[in-house]
Amino acid sequence: MRTFRLVIACPDRVGIVAKVSNVLAAYNGWITEANHHSDNLSGWFFMRHEIRADSLPFDVDGLRTAFAPIGNEFKMDWRVSDSAQRKKVVLMASRESHCLADLLHRWHSGELDCDITSVISNHDDLRSMVEWHGIPFHHVPVNPQDKAPAFAEVNELVAEQQADCIVLARYMQILPPELCARYAHRIINIHHSFLPSFVGARPYHQAAQRGVKLIGATCHYVTEELDAGPIIEQDVVRITHRHNADDMVRLGKDVEKMVLSRGLRYHLEDRVLVHDNKTVVFS
Amino acid sequence: MRTFRLVIACPDRVGIVAKVSNVLAAYNGWITEANHHSDNLSGWFFMRHEIRADSLPFDVDGLRTAFAPIGNEFKMDWRVSDSAQRKKVVLMASRESHCLADLLHRWHSGELDCDITSVISNHDDLRSMVEWHGIPFHHVPVNPQDKAPAFAEVNELVAEQQADCIVLARYMQILPPELCARYAHRIINIHHSFLPSFVGARPYHQAAQRGVKLIGATCHYVTEELDAGPIIEQDVVRITHRHNADDMVRLGKDVEKMVLSRGLRYHLEDRVLVHDNKTVVFS
Amino acid sequence: MRTFRLVIACPDRVGIVAKVSNVLAAYNGWITEANHHSDNLSGWFFMRHEIRADSLPFDVDGLRTAFAPIGNEFKMDWRVSDSAQRKKVVLMASRESHCLADLLHRWHSGELDCDITSVISNHDDLRSMVEWHGIPFHHVPVNPQDKAPAFAEVNELVAEQQADCIVLARYMQILPPELCARYAHRIINIHHSFLPSFVGARPYHQAAQRGVKLIGATCHYVTEELDAGPIIEQDVVRITHRHNADDMVRLGKDVEKMVLSRGLRYHLEDRVLVHDNKTVVFS
Amino acid sequence: MRTFRLVIACPDRVGIVAKVSNVLAAYNGWITEANHHSDNLSGWFFMRHEIRADSLPFDVDGLRTAFAPIGNEFKMDWRVSDSAQRKKVVLMASRESHCLADLLHRWHSGELDCDITSVISNHDDLRSMVEWHGIPFHHVPVNPQDKAPAFAEVNELVAEQQADCIVLARYMQILPPELCARYAHRIINIHHSFLPSFVGARPYHQAAQRGVKLIGATCHYVTEELDAGPIIEQDVVRITHRHNADDMVRLGKDVEKMVLSRGLRYHLEDRVLVHDNKTVVFS
Repeated sequence: MRTFRLVIACPDRVGIVAKVSNVLAAYNGWITEANHHSDNLSGWFFMRHEIRADSLPFDVDGLRTAFAPIGNEFKMDWRVSDSAQRKKVVLMASRESHCLADLLHRWHSGELDCDITSVISNHDDLRSMVEWHGIPFHHVPVNPQDKAPAFAEVNELVAEQQADCIVLARYMQILPPELCARYAHRIINIHHSFLPSFVGARPYHQAAQRGVKLIGATCHYVTEELDAGPIIEQDVVRITHRHNADDMVRLGKDVEKMVLSRGLRYHLEDRVLVHDNKTVVFS
Repeated sequence: MRTFRLVIACPDRVGIVAKVSNVLAAYNGWITEANHHSDNLSGWFFMRHEIRADSLPFDVDGLRTAFAPIGNEFKMDWRVSDSAQRKKVVLMASRESHCLADLLHRWHSGELDCDITSVISNHDDLRSMVEWHGIPFHHVPVNPQDKAPAFAEVNELVAEQQADCIVLARYMQILPPELCARYAHRIINIHHSFLPSFVGARPYHQAAQRGVKLIGATCHYVTEELDAGPIIEQDVVRITHRHNADDMVRLGKDVEKMVLSRGLRYHLEDRVLVHDNKTVVFS
Repeated sequence: MRTFRLVIACPDRVGIVAKVSNVLAAYNGWITEANHHSDNLSGWFFMRHEIRADSLPFDVDGLRTAFAPIGNEFKMDWRVSDSAQRKKVVLMASRESHCLADLLHRWHSGELDCDITSVISNHDDLRSMVEWHGIPFHHVPVNPQDKAPAFAEVNELVAEQQADCIVLARYMQILPPELCARYAHRIINIHHSFLPSFVGARPYHQAAQRGVKLIGATCHYVTEELDAGPIIEQDVVRITHRHNADDMVRLGKDVEKMVLSRGLRYHLEDRVLVHDNKTVVFS
Repeated sequence: MRTFRLVIACPDRVGIVAKVSNVLAAYNGWITEANHHSDNLSGWFFMRHEIRADSLPFDVDGLRTAFAPIGNEFKMDWRVSDSAQRKKVVLMASRESHCLADLLHRWHSGELDCDITSVISNHDDLRSMVEWHGIPFHHVPVNPQDKAPAFAEVNELVAEQQADCIVLARYMQILPPELCARYAHRIINIHHSFLPSFVGARPYHQAAQRGVKLIGATCHYVTEELDAGPIIEQDVVRITHRHNADDMVRLGKDVEKMVLSRGLRYHLEDRVLVHDNKTVVFS
């Protein structure tokens, strides 16, 4: 069922819901899902509606036109998306296949509602797996002494493909700040620890060193500061003294896959609103 | 912060949200929390609002009067409650103390927003614990040969105390159908299994017999049919072959306490809507 | 690191551990992992050792010969396996790809220590995916009016491939009793409910009907009685009123995959001991 | 059932298990539970046995005498404890009652196998609750300008009561280094975060600030460095954007209680072995 998604963030005040629902009702809009959140701390209000496209007398631009006056009146950050316009996603990976394979299978079986325009990797290992899915694979090696050319190529590929969103499926390279800025809140990373614990390299080894009893994974938007962006989703799995760092790597893979795919799904369905380096997730 | 809670269930159609939010906005109502659910299967719509009492120009009866026309127009099941009118709760227990002690402590420390008018038990064991909390304790023994007098007394006590809600904190006796009917959707039970598995007596022993790898607990409204009422909340805990039935009893206690207290909290805050023997829980 | 696995079940009595560890110490066996379980209820004792192969002066048959007298003395069910002799596994699937894709990826990336001799399916849909992994695919359609020829062919394929173990990765067909008997405790199924709840067909729809707040999956050995065999592993995921049966199917897939792969892993590593229709899992 | 617990840590080598089980078998010792762990990283071996006291021809000192030669031979850290000699525990609390009430109830209902010799608190608030349980309550105020006198008194009380173990049930004061050293691996703290995240004060507010999607609690042995001691047990609970810091405090309480009581139980049953600032927990 095709829906339009109206997503709003604005300073909270009385009457917002009435205004928004009035305009939708005025056009006979059939709301299939509605979520609200008033954040007491920041004084901001967040809202997401899904409206059946076939209940409205206009297309997605019509809805935008109809809604614009309210958006202006309440000084809203707002956007409308159309579930029929699948987001274009570029996946980036390195050598580890588990997150990539998981996303590709979910996409292949119709679970992830997006177009994967290509996979970009700094290694060639996963080419065959990607190409079996009918998706272009770009091998863009990164020279540790001079990474700029590689990221220029990445940037060009992403631009050419008009990607809406970049997913770092265990890409293992730090993106340059200007790329982070250009795709702010549109680059999704999976970090293999329960952030803010174990930022940076080899988090499972850090976890083994500290002797924690649960390990986790964190899906977050990428910002310039490493592993410090807004968190979309997290989860953990129990370990014991019997698990060494290799076991943690194995057990952690399952958490990484789950957390990344859930985070991406929320993003694709416009369920994630970012404010003050934190997220509202209408899951 | 004092709020009024407006809870609605009705056949779904376009315009409900607009109508409801208009009436609230018309009186300058400040919505602190709003939840909606459209159930595709049944075609019903469910909604719950919390509105700051001090933002409205009238008290709870004024809100009822203002809302009644909309309730009639949309043939709603609706109710308005006032967070300042704490629900009156009767707790029923037997000999096992864990659920009762847990609820009493939560109440004592201000976590459960209700008045506990009394504890009724078929055994006298827990009297001292209850009375330390300053709550009346009624020992109403149940004669297995003739249970009617006991339940007549229970009924009278509950009526006298004008209880809004009865909580069976491991009461271990089956209530008579007429009591179930009189307090429909207001008697909350904790069953020590993950329903619908292991209905009836000694569920942990049934679980040990079957060799399951997780055991659970279920908080549900009591209906005439044993352990078959609408489920409010459930949870589980992992077990292994090393756990015998006694271990399950011990581990299960923690799940029972948690599940019952969460379920009761949802009920006290008017977050549970019952439809077709299932619940919508706006948690 | 190559290990031999010594797995024992016998009536409990004093001195078993000493006898077993003495024989291992006598040959200088380096125990890398040891697990014991005394079951009070049945009076049985269960034990599993992993011993470094390179610490022993003989191969796996030598260990068998050395151990046999003790096995006889204590009337043990016992077996020794060699981690270097990878088990031969036949996967069976139908149209749903999630469990199959998950197992194939784990195998492909070296996480599942076995040889997958082939995939047998009653539909041809998943052929390409299987063949990409370099694994033979057999399409054996099942005629609902006469299933015998299909299962005769399955039986023949499994025998030809000398499979140690059959995994029903959402195969959706009930195996004939004689096949269940021939591969007793060697056919692993994933059932998409938290057994014993929702035996049989369409468990997610049963779950939606009952209004449970968690759904689950169960990995178990197949016996003649449907969904009643010894449970190896189970897990659950939380749902709410917002999830309809389709959502449950989607969310359940992730639990199914995880539970099946964990159960299979335990089986492949000889960590599962069956007694009285229950399992001891030395995970 | 009375048992003796033999707990061992030593450098790993071949033959330890045989030696230990031989001496137990020689005296007809009936092992009811046995756990082993070989830590590859450190090269240490850990072992715990429970032996039925009535199966041995001597008391706990007899077992010590019988075992001492082996302990010496293998340069073991070892100890034998008697389940009939309940550990003496001092609980320390401040104003928050949830952890204390939970432990007291578990003790009162026979779930925690120990003697609680007293509760020491820097506030008088919880006196009545403690005294209802028949346990002495000591109010030892801590002067922020000069904490030494208070800790001298605490030290004296603990010494007088010959406490085996101190439990900080949300005590909220930092113990002086000499007390930490005197009771090394015998002071158990509950920290209200998933360590190593959010060390120090107001961890829930730190968590709210960072926007994490799970909050947790950590039970650990106290060392001189704040919140850095060996972790015994951890757990988490899911939160969303709807939960502010106050909600986290409420939800976190349940995790704190569970984690502390599990950690204490493991300690009381001699299931926790400390090595290199990490724990082996034979749970």
